[in-house]
Formats: sequence, structure tokens, C-alpha cells
Amino acid sequence: MSLIVQKFGGSSVADPERIKIVADRVAETLRAGHQVLVVLSALGGTTDKLITLSKEITDNPSDREMDMLLSTGEQISISLLSMALHELGIEAISLTGAQVGIITDSSHTKARIKEISGGTIQKELDQGKVVVVAGFQGIDLSNNITTLGRGGSDLTAVALASVLKADQCEIYTDVDGIYTADPRVVADARKLELISHDEMLELASLGANVMNARSVEFAKKFGVTIHVRSSFNQKDGTLITEEAEKMEDAVIRGVTKNTEESKVTILHVPDTPGVAAKVFKILADVNANIDMIIQNVSEKGKTDISFTVINSDFAKVQKVLEELCTEVGADSVEYDQNIAKISVVGIGMKSHSGVAAKMFEVLAHESINIKMISTSEIKISCVIAKDQADKAVRVLHEEFDLAKELIPE
Amino acid sequence: MSLIVQKFGGSSVADPERIKIVADRVAETLRAGHQVLVVLSALGGTTDKLITLSKEITDNPSDREMDMLLSTGEQISISLLSMALHELGIEAISLTGAQVGIITDSSHTKARIKEISGGTIQKELDQGKVVVVAGFQGIDLSNNITTLGRGGSDLTAVALASVLKADQCEIYTDVDGIYTADPRVVADARKLELISHDEMLELASLGANVMNARSVEFAKKFGVTIHVRSSFNQKDGTLITEEAEKMEDAVIRGVTKNTEESKVTILHVPDTPGVAAKVFKILADVNANIDMIIQNVSEKGKTDISFTVINSDFAKVQKVLEELCTEVGADSVEYDQNIAKISVVGIGMKSHSGVAAKMFEVLAHESINIKMISTSEIKISCVIAKDQADKAVRVLHEEFDLAKELIPE
Repeated sequence: MSLIVQKFGGSSVADPERIKIVADRVAETLRAGHQVLVVLSALGGTTDKLITLSKEITDNPSDREMDMLLSTGEQISISLLSMALHELGIEAISLTGAQVGIITDSSHTKARIKEISGGTIQKELDQGKVVVVAGFQGIDLSNNITTLGRGGSDLTAVALASVLKADQCEIYTDVDGIYTADPRVVADARKLELISHDEMLELASLGANVMNARSVEFAKKFGVTIHVRSSFNQKDGTLITEEAEKMEDAVIRGVTKNTEESKVTILHVPDTPGVAAKVFKILADVNANIDMIIQNVSEKGKTDISFTVINSDFAKVQKVLEELCTEVGADSVEYDQNIAKISVVGIGMKSHSGVAAKMFEVLAHESINIKMISTSEIKISCVIAKDQADKAVRVLHEEFDLAKELIPE
Repeated sequence: MSLIVQKFGGSSVADPERIKIVADRVAETLRAGHQVLVVLSALGGTTDKLITLSKEITDNPSDREMDMLLSTGEQISISLLSMALHELGIEAISLTGAQVGIITDSSHTKARIKEISGGTIQKELDQGKVVVVAGFQGIDLSNNITTLGRGGSDLTAVALASVLKADQCEIYTDVDGIYTADPRVVADARKLELISHDEMLELASLGANVMNARSVEFAKKFGVTIHVRSSFNQKDGTLITEEAEKMEDAVIRGVTKNTEESKVTILHVPDTPGVAAKVFKILADVNANIDMIIQNVSEKGKTDISFTVINSDFAKVQKVLEELCTEVGADSVEYDQNIAKISVVGIGMKSHSGVAAKMFEVLAHESINIKMISTSEIKISCVIAKDQADKAVRVLHEEFDLAKELIPE
């Protein structure tokens, strides 16, 4: 008998009606002859309500108490889903992170999983029960409740799928799967049947907001195949899986845009050892999320350093750079908030050359100026003007033939 | 250094503002040089909201999942109070029933405490922290979350006070303490300074709704002194304590009325062995809460059986009695829903005679007809017409001189 892990997010369990729909979905999977392990987020809206309560008490809550508070959210959803399953005549039991034995470190609000004992869940599955586990939460070695931070429920699902050797890990979302581009931008964007963990990692961090990168990394590390699919229909979604040979037939898997970053350039920095280190040490100290970094060639002992920073960190970067400028003897700082990062991603790049050249050519043909370039083994990113972003995505999608199914069936 | 346990109910922690007031109260106790262990109920209203959610899913939720759901309520209040204490610069840590190690049996929704290890709490207290414990909840030996049922948070407080050998267990309520009678009925009702566990037990079960009988029983068994006091002012309340000699100086400690019962009489039951057993077996089978039982003398081989039943169980009693009547060969059943039970309670009765005679005389003098009588070592109860109840309480309060302080200072 095969074991399926099914993870449902907050919007799928936002109210009792939707919880019943989730119960129906679980019932179908059981009827198809599978064992089911469900992982749930908190009811949509609950977390925000709890945060509002805490803010009325303090602006600076302790992380431990925040975890104590927020972990009640999933405890509510798992008990309600178990009741809904009972109502359908299905044996089910809810378990908190602590009850499962999801042992984490003690970094409250962003704990990392250290160890999971699958014994408790396995025992209940063996008794024919559906096991409903609270996502997002664990317990440290001193018995404190912890939470896993952003994407935590996906991570719980992937980790449990790995420990229990599940046959599939289904992540239910409000989209049908992973697309070659954002369907709101590219009309003929195509849903991918398959994508590799590495490609998904690039896409996750490049602005395709379906899966959190951390869970995909975990899935890659432990060889878990994830099925991203919609909770609103029965269609197959996209399998995120280990690299398969036929995957390389497609040179490019998808095109993304990210408009949530700004460009910063520090002009005429003395080109002496240790200056770049100093700059980025200061940015790291204020926890600024820096992405692309480029240093241009030096001229008369001076150089320009450019980087992109996530917009939510822009204000604090601006603040520390004013001082830094005089400190390192740079001339001035330029800011550009009207940028977009366009990327093409695909494992096929490893074995196909000329992808970068083609990308630059396509953009040039459309008179789109490239402000920054950065590459990895399987992706190429260009920073361009924000108002040209959608056009760039459309032409790249077309020129790389992404609307056409390339994987031989 | 003395340890004070302070228990606050749902209305004392109904919203962030009130939680801050509780934090101030704890801070004062600390300043007075005590260690503090706080026990909390769920935020007022939370439990009802959670029950409403569950009802939208099922009319018949499993008890285990109900405990999983409802135990989130206290987890929310303890984390918020800890944050409020931190905001005052006080070190504090919240602990769930499971984290404390409140081991119960597996009777979900009405679990009984089997064992408490005070080690975790003691360790935190020793580090100078205020420990904030979730009332009402525990964990069974299979790691399932359980709840203790009605009065559960009081019970947690009393049990922890016992295990940790606390110097006092303060139960904060919305009244100033225990009164000689309901102040809404008797204008000169007096707040008692002291009352024995036994007297409180009689009062608790006789309609003085301040303390749940179960917690008082526990306190009696383990010699815990409870201080019932108001969360709205600083006045001393009432100490519920072990019997002291001077207590017997007061013949009567209080007068109560209970208008939440009805009287049932089964007429002309055959007076043969086993009939009463049959009647009350059937009532027990439907979980009817029966209070006073009286069987009159037999006449021509027939007798009448009267009892009182709590009003919320009245409908189901009526239903089973219709059938029962023919089954046991009784003539008919009479119901009286317009009754009140008036009781006088006091340890002094043990050493003073004539209390019952005086009570009956007082009632007769006011032309109040007595329908049923029942007595214990330290109380006398009379069932009378409901519309005469307040008058009866007033005259008994006066004739037994309860407005006057009898305990020598």
C-alpha cells in the first residue's frame, strides 16, 4: 500500500466549509487505495489575528512566546480536519509537532529540523488511520515549542515524506502547478509536467512564488518528489523531481521576472583589498537581503560596485550606505528602484551553449537595455527597466519556444 | 522565599488590556518578595468561538479532538501574559499542561489528574522566573492532550500549589470572596474571613457558584489553603482552609438557595425490594443528575418516591419515567418545577443541637411550607416553593445572626 503525504495551506482550510472539502479530497485518496498523511497550516487569517493580539501587548514579543502563541493555529486546524474526517466515517487522529517528535534546534520563529522520529505516525497509519499533522511547528530538546518560519508547513510535509518514505508528497496550492512563465503575463504559458529540484530552486528564488526554496532544497537533499497541484480541481500539477536524462532535451524550462528588488551602485570606490568585504559585512550586519553583486573593472584605482537588494530592506540599506560612503572613500551612491530581474532557467543549459548569447540578442532586438547580468550553471538573469519586464518575458518565452511541449512523452 | 500560586479565570484575561492588569498584579506580588506561579484559563470567549467552529463541522465531535481544539485557548493566554510580563521587565516563561507534566487519565474532556511532576516548574522558579501555566489541561500516558472539565483551571492551580508546597493558592474571581448569603438577596450578607473545606464543599454544591466542588475536594485532601479574592480590587477575600477549632463557634456559616432543580414524585410504587434500585439505575443510565431522594413510609404495600433533578436533565428524566411507571407498576408521576432548595451550612452544627428544629420553626413562622428535607453532618436543606425562596434566605440569615462577626479576632 502506498503512502501519500498531502499538505494543505491556510487558504485551503480557511473555514469549516473548506475544511470539509479537504476531508473529501482525503477520502478520495483513501478510496483509491492509499494511506494518507495530511499536513496542515493554520486556518487562513488565524495567524494574523494572533499577531494582532500580541501587538496589543508588546511591540517586541519574545520569540519563544511568539512560537507558543502561533503554534496554536495549526493545532486548531488539525483537530477540525480530524473531526471532519470522522464525520465521513474515516478513522483519523491529529498530532502536534511535539507529539510527532519533530525535533528542531532552539532558533525560535525560524527553527531548523534536526531529527524526526516517524514511529508515532507509522503506528497510527498501521492501525488504518489518517494522520493529520500540524505543519510549521516542532519542539526543541528542552521541550520548548518552536516554529519553522516561512514555508514551514511545506517543509514539514517534505520532511515527513522523506522520513516515512512516502510515495508522493502533494503540496496543494491555489495554482495548477509550475508554469513556463506567469500566465498573467504570457498568454500561452504552459504548465510543466516535470521540473528538476535544481530548476525549481532557481525559479523559487527568482520570483515564482509557488514553492518556498527551503522545502525544495530539503526535497532535493533527500530525494523527495513533490507534486504541486491545485486544491480547487482534480488535474495533475507539476512533479518536482530528481534530474532525469530526458529533462536536458528542454534547453529552457521557464522564464521569470522579479520586480521586488532595487539596484544600488556605489560609485568610485577605492580598488584596494578589503573594501568590498567591508561594504558587504556592514550590509550583512543589518540583515539586508542582497542578491546580484557586480564589480566593474577598475579605472584609475577606483571601481564601481553594484548590487540588488530586496525592496523591503531598501530603507535600511540606504541608511547605512550614507555613512559607509565617506568611511570607505567612495564618491556617492546611486539608487534605481525601477528595475526588474528577468531570468531564464533550465538544466538543458549545461549541455547547450549559446543560451546567454541568444537571450541578449532577443532583448537587444526589442531595444531592451541590460543593466546587470548574473549567471549560474542553469540560469541567466538580466536586470532591465521595470516597464519593459513583461515584454521581455513574452519575447523570451516565444523565442525559446516554451509554449511547445518539448519533453517526449 | 514564599511561593504564591495565582489563578485567573477567563474574564480576567478576556482581552490584552485585562491581561496587562493581571501582569501588574503579578508584578506587585513579586515586589512584595514572593515567587509567583500563575495559572490561566483561556481568554474569555475563546472557548465558545472554538466550540462554534467545531459545530460547523460536526454535531458529534470526538472527545480527543475536542481536547486538542480547546486546549489551544489557554496556550494563547499564557503566551500573551508572558509577553505582558516581559514588557514590565519581568522574566517569565509559559508552559502548557504537557510541558509541565500534568499527567491525567485518558477520559477526554473530563480527565482526572494522576500525577504531576513539579520539576520543570521548580527549575524555572529557581532561575527567578514567573512561571505561567495553562490551566484546565494535561496529557495522558500515550501523549494525548486532555482537558480536566468544569472547574479545571481551579483544579490545576490547587494541584500545583499542593505539589510545589506553595504558601498560598489565590483564586481570582469577579466576587470579593465567600458570603454568608447571596448579597443580591440579603442586604447585610457578610463576607467570611474563613471557611472550612467541608463547609465550602457543601456551599459549592448547594449553589454558591464561586468555587467548583472538585477543586475544594482536592484542596481538602491535600491540605491546600485557598484564598478566593477579587481580581478587581486589593481587598482580602475568603480563606478556605482546614478545620480550625474556633470555627465551631459559628453554628452556621452561610445560607444558600438553589433554584436550578425540580422535584419529581413517583406515586404508589409497590414497596418491594429492588424497585428503588430499578428506578435510579434507569436514571443513572441516562446520566441524570439526581440530588435529594426521599421515600415515604409505605401504606398498603405502596410507597411514594420523591427526588430532585437538575433542570437541565429534567426533559430526559420525564421521558424515561413515562415508560418506567408502567414497568414498575406505579400509579403516576408528579412534577414540580417551582421549587427552591434552601440550605444552612456550618461545621458548628456538629457540636450544637437544635439547628434543624430552629430552621423549621423559622420557616413555619413565615408560613413557608417544607416539601422535602435532607441533612448531612454539617448542613440542612429544605425544598420550598420557589417564590418564597428569597424570603426564606433572608429570615434564616437574620435568625441565625449571620450578619454578626462570630469568629473571635
